[in-house]
Amino acid sequence: MSIPVAIVGASGYTGAELLRLLSAHPTARVTRVFARRSAGARVEDVFPQFRGALSMPIEAFDADAAAGAAEIAFTALPHGDSAEAVAALRERGVVVIDLSADFRLRDAEVYARWYGGEERAPHPAPALLGEAVYGLPERYRDDIAGAGIVAGPGCYPTAAVLAVAPLLEAGLVEPDVVIDAKSGASGAGRSPSQATHLPEAGEGVRPYKIAGGHRHTPEIVQEMGLAAGRAAKVLFTPHLLPMSRGLLACVYARPTPGTAENQAVFEDALAAAYAHEPFVTALSGGACPDTAHVRGSNRAHVSVRYDEASGRVLAMCALDNLVKGASGQAVQCMNLMCGAEETAGLAGAGFFP
Amino acid sequence: MSIPVAIVGASGYTGAELLRLLSAHPTARVTRVFARRSAGARVEDVFPQFRGALSMPIEAFDADAAAGAAEIAFTALPHGDSAEAVAALRERGVVVIDLSADFRLRDAEVYARWYGGEERAPHPAPALLGEAVYGLPERYRDDIAGAGIVAGPGCYPTAAVLAVAPLLEAGLVEPDVVIDAKSGASGAGRSPSQATHLPEAGEGVRPYKIAGGHRHTPEIVQEMGLAAGRAAKVLFTPHLLPMSRGLLACVYARPTPGTAENQAVFEDALAAAYAHEPFVTALSGGACPDTAHVRGSNRAHVSVRYDEASGRVLAMCALDNLVKGASGQAVQCMNLMCGAEETAGLAGAGFFP
Amino acid sequence: MSIPVAIVGASGYTGAELLRLLSAHPTARVTRVFARRSAGARVEDVFPQFRGALSMPIEAFDADAAAGAAEIAFTALPHGDSAEAVAALRERGVVVIDLSADFRLRDAEVYARWYGGEERAPHPAPALLGEAVYGLPERYRDDIAGAGIVAGPGCYPTAAVLAVAPLLEAGLVEPDVVIDAKSGASGAGRSPSQATHLPEAGEGVRPYKIAGGHRHTPEIVQEMGLAAGRAAKVLFTPHLLPMSRGLLACVYARPTPGTAENQAVFEDALAAAYAHEPFVTALSGGACPDTAHVRGSNRAHVSVRYDEASGRVLAMCALDNLVKGASGQAVQCMNLMCGAEETAGLAGAGFFP
Amino acid sequence: MSIPVAIVGASGYTGAELLRLLSAHPTARVTRVFARRSAGARVEDVFPQFRGALSMPIEAFDADAAAGAAEIAFTALPHGDSAEAVAALRERGVVVIDLSADFRLRDAEVYARWYGGEERAPHPAPALLGEAVYGLPERYRDDIAGAGIVAGPGCYPTAAVLAVAPLLEAGLVEPDVVIDAKSGASGAGRSPSQATHLPEAGEGVRPYKIAGGHRHTPEIVQEMGLAAGRAAKVLFTPHLLPMSRGLLACVYARPTPGTAENQAVFEDALAAAYAHEPFVTALSGGACPDTAHVRGSNRAHVSVRYDEASGRVLAMCALDNLVKGASGQAVQCMNLMCGAEETAGLAGAGFFP
Repeated sequence: MSIPVAIVGASGYTGAELLRLLSAHPTARVTRVFARRSAGARVEDVFPQFRGALSMPIEAFDADAAAGAAEIAFTALPHGDSAEAVAALRERGVVVIDLSADFRLRDAEVYARWYGGEERAPHPAPALLGEAVYGLPERYRDDIAGAGIVAGPGCYPTAAVLAVAPLLEAGLVEPDVVIDAKSGASGAGRSPSQATHLPEAGEGVRPYKIAGGHRHTPEIVQEMGLAAGRAAKVLFTPHLLPMSRGLLACVYARPTPGTAENQAVFEDALAAAYAHEPFVTALSGGACPDTAHVRGSNRAHVSVRYDEASGRVLAMCALDNLVKGASGQAVQCMNLMCGAEETAGLAGAGFFP
Repeated sequence: MSIPVAIVGASGYTGAELLRLLSAHPTARVTRVFARRSAGARVEDVFPQFRGALSMPIEAFDADAAAGAAEIAFTALPHGDSAEAVAALRERGVVVIDLSADFRLRDAEVYARWYGGEERAPHPAPALLGEAVYGLPERYRDDIAGAGIVAGPGCYPTAAVLAVAPLLEAGLVEPDVVIDAKSGASGAGRSPSQATHLPEAGEGVRPYKIAGGHRHTPEIVQEMGLAAGRAAKVLFTPHLLPMSRGLLACVYARPTPGTAENQAVFEDALAAAYAHEPFVTALSGGACPDTAHVRGSNRAHVSVRYDEASGRVLAMCALDNLVKGASGQAVQCMNLMCGAEETAGLAGAGFFP
Repeated sequence: MSIPVAIVGASGYTGAELLRLLSAHPTARVTRVFARRSAGARVEDVFPQFRGALSMPIEAFDADAAAGAAEIAFTALPHGDSAEAVAALRERGVVVIDLSADFRLRDAEVYARWYGGEERAPHPAPALLGEAVYGLPERYRDDIAGAGIVAGPGCYPTAAVLAVAPLLEAGLVEPDVVIDAKSGASGAGRSPSQATHLPEAGEGVRPYKIAGGHRHTPEIVQEMGLAAGRAAKVLFTPHLLPMSRGLLACVYARPTPGTAENQAVFEDALAAAYAHEPFVTALSGGACPDTAHVRGSNRAHVSVRYDEASGRVLAMCALDNLVKGASGQAVQCMNLMCGAEETAGLAGAGFFP
Repeated sequence: MSIPVAIVGASGYTGAELLRLLSAHPTARVTRVFARRSAGARVEDVFPQFRGALSMPIEAFDADAAAGAAEIAFTALPHGDSAEAVAALRERGVVVIDLSADFRLRDAEVYARWYGGEERAPHPAPALLGEAVYGLPERYRDDIAGAGIVAGPGCYPTAAVLAVAPLLEAGLVEPDVVIDAKSGASGAGRSPSQATHLPEAGEGVRPYKIAGGHRHTPEIVQEMGLAAGRAAKVLFTPHLLPMSRGLLACVYARPTPGTAENQAVFEDALAAAYAHEPFVTALSGGACPDTAHVRGSNRAHVSVRYDEASGRVLAMCALDNLVKGASGQAVQCMNLMCGAEETAGLAGAGFFP
């Protein structure tokens, strides 16, 4: 009894990662693969890692074809385009997990401000926003199970929220945080650019799109606010690192007045929050997460440290931006939506060294 | 109906890779894990990628314990030690797949010369040599299926032999070859050294142990000779590259007199040899293999090019030194020995990017 | 008219970098090279980059020999050892630039707490502390010129202080900061370790020695406090990155009450502070520093951003940890001490790509 | 008494490297900088490593302006364009060092075949070919000194020729060689591409343009033939490595009949050839060259090994593709042409780690 799924948008890394994960999934079965740039080619022509492992044609997107062949579709198109594909699929009764930014923000106004360009073009399918659930199982597990649209979170928000949301929710830290995050270059996508040209990016680190310049900012603000139960302030600084995969978020916060300021309070809160989570491990004993230890897996390593000297809390999370930060998490959502084991197809250990 | 297996030697990368692959295997079940350096710890303490995925104690090796708990054992100890463990396990009726060099060479004299140190100490278990089968399924599939001891090939020999053996066997090229091979640093093992210190090795390339200095040389000579049906001459030049995983072998040979010297002859021979192989893909149309495309998978990409100007043939093979070059190939052998599907637990695509 | 200099401690990267810079210096002349680990070898045996460029014997340290051959000595030994060598050299009238941590902290108590081990062993040469000047020319230029001992700053403190000291000094931000800093692996020195083993560190990022665990913390606290004119609070998070050279510090602060909170105020302060500095460039127009652009040079790129949404200031600095973060800055100090042009031997552009 | 020089083509890496080297040169003085893509910008806008170090306008190329301001010009334009600029400069009496391929091949027919496209367009300035000298000082020092046009060799030919030319010239090996060469990604230039996109190229190795596919092939054939005194056969296999700088060539050859086949014969020949060369070091005692040891310098490390088992010789050379393989060698030629010290501005050690 397999579940037929379609992938819409297979030219990029998240599409390829979906293919990798779903082709090893015990119950899902990829029936159709669509893409724009690569339509007409075969999967193994566009991504040679599939040679010998998976051979399928890539077609131009057709909503009827997708609906005829799949119960669930993953959409991984540029924002705007993705919303249109989602709308077409929903009309035809397909359940959709969208990996673009189109359904992450609850407020269409905020979407227009961050994604609408200079003219603040409105959201392409605002009527569907109410139907969408933010696809972070550790926070919205039950809602995801019954959703028609799941919005796969951004890689940076996933890491930042996993690191600090339990502390915000428990009222232990103020919702006024600095997020200093570091990402591998695969987060920039498959299109070559000067910024990801090996001779220039292979040995160096730099911040980019700082101080509200990165579009993951409103998503982080939204989720931090929801966790805290009041409006959050966020200064978010992403960095490009000389590596392919991996994302580390360091979240700096202050304890709320009245919180007992000792390590155990914060560490216990994190440990409790993730005690039964299959993919999130709260490290103890002062260990720091390392992205190398979660590479290729759907796992996240989190830890927290209270620093007496400065009276601050540092919450950290390491994950693989293409797996737990994108495609793996989307499959985790699919599992919940299908009533499959949540870890189906995702139980493997990280890929190290 | 699961197959209980033990891992003897889990402190190193090949042991960890065995754990990664076997914990996702449909029928094998790791029942005991032994190691020397790490005995007393748990798997996830030594290799943090297993946090949340696999938690097992690591014990000091005990042949009785292993035999009581497993039908098949993987041994991944330093040479010499491995032979002793294999002997103890064989006495107790355990089938063994050995990842050390101890059972790769058919001739105990050759072993003593290359592994016996200055005093040429004899092989620790020469009586078992006759029982051992070289664990390269593409060449010894049937023998592996019934073997008591399988000797997992070295990473360099696997790549070099996969690249050129079909041409040697078909008599198309002379068994007098130059092998220029490039490896990631994980091939050097887990112990830190100056040669693999990131600041010094992270941006640079150098040959090492050239001209008969590398212990994989006799193994390559043996297998090339067996393929050709006569003694082979080999000049083998390994290189250390600034990456973790991946191995590329370029094998330079001359056509045998009388061979029609055109691309199709060589390309067809390679294509025919691997047409039905589940893990080896012969590239056509002039494509060159790239280690990035086989990273993390048990796959090998091979191709061949005849160069008219120089009258030479270049056969190439890319693989992941820890998977097809070590632990994945060992699991492939295990599958054959158990009568499981040869691809069980190994069917996944490469891990890219 | 050349200045004879000696290098004491040439087995490590800072020693080698001193040799590289001084052998190209227009007026300095390295007359003797001392080291412990490498004594008896020649420079080019220990550091093959000097083959054909520089050939000198490395001797066991002898204070008389050094004093007989040099007016200025650079000491780059482990802390504790360095202080003893400095004391011996000062007795003999040699001016010393010390690259260890021994003379960076003004307060011997603080030194004992951070470097004295569990028993808080006292400073080896407390009487000399008063004589020592912190070797950051952008802050202590005049004192350096006449000093008998210059304490070369740590790489992290150099970056953090260059980024934010002008803002602290101008009273624009509070001396209560978060420093999230990222370093290449050469900062860990030449001794191999698991943490810098290429297969494990070559693709990943992790924080280490967080929350007061890193010995550069008190040095940063000291210098931030001096800049602000009152005690500073610092939360310092260093990270290890998959690259050899380069250090980026991101310093997060809040404007002091009453400061006009707009970008120009902070940007102008930084621009003014470095307008006439030969090695520090304040970037304008929202540019972020990139360590790739200062690699191999004595330059630092700094910039600052005020974020309205969070009411915070982010000050950034990129430098090469072995040059401006160590040996280049030491040569800059030497130039000041000799009355040479401050940029002598250091004027070159970064090494990019 | 400075020498005014112009750079024509400063948008790429070789142009930037010329600027880095020449701005630190004791006698040369860059008076004008020309480029196409970057005209109108300033040097530090295009290459941020020059911030604070060098600030010059980049102009659209004008031969009169160049001739009015410079005695020597470096041209680093795409092939074809470069020849035109060279012709214009020669007409105006400027001595030119060309870093393109336009004047490397002595035979215009060969040029047309490799650079003339499908229609084999003829050389743009065939009359000037006779005037051009191949700019490899170790082989054509005297001719370079008096030349009007020097053709800077390709990076691969420089390494391959330095490795084996002395053996060919001494008649010790046959001019029928395999060259297996490995290059960092900066050799591919500054334009981003899929092949040099960090996520795809940062961890992997692959051959490219093999078997006569690479345009450096005829240049290698020409120079090997000239060294041997008879036509050479070459099989050349370039590889792209996951690093920015560095090039290693392994040249495999057979001893000529009659040559005493022992290590000393070959090693002595190489040692003798380079005994007085300022930039080439012949390693002894079995050492292998490492590109990390010559990074950033104009140095080449060469060594040779005779392998008794296969009866073959392996000659190796490591260099920095942008320095000794391009811009540094061009400056070395300039020094010869100006009567300056050959090592002027180039004496520095490699940049390691």
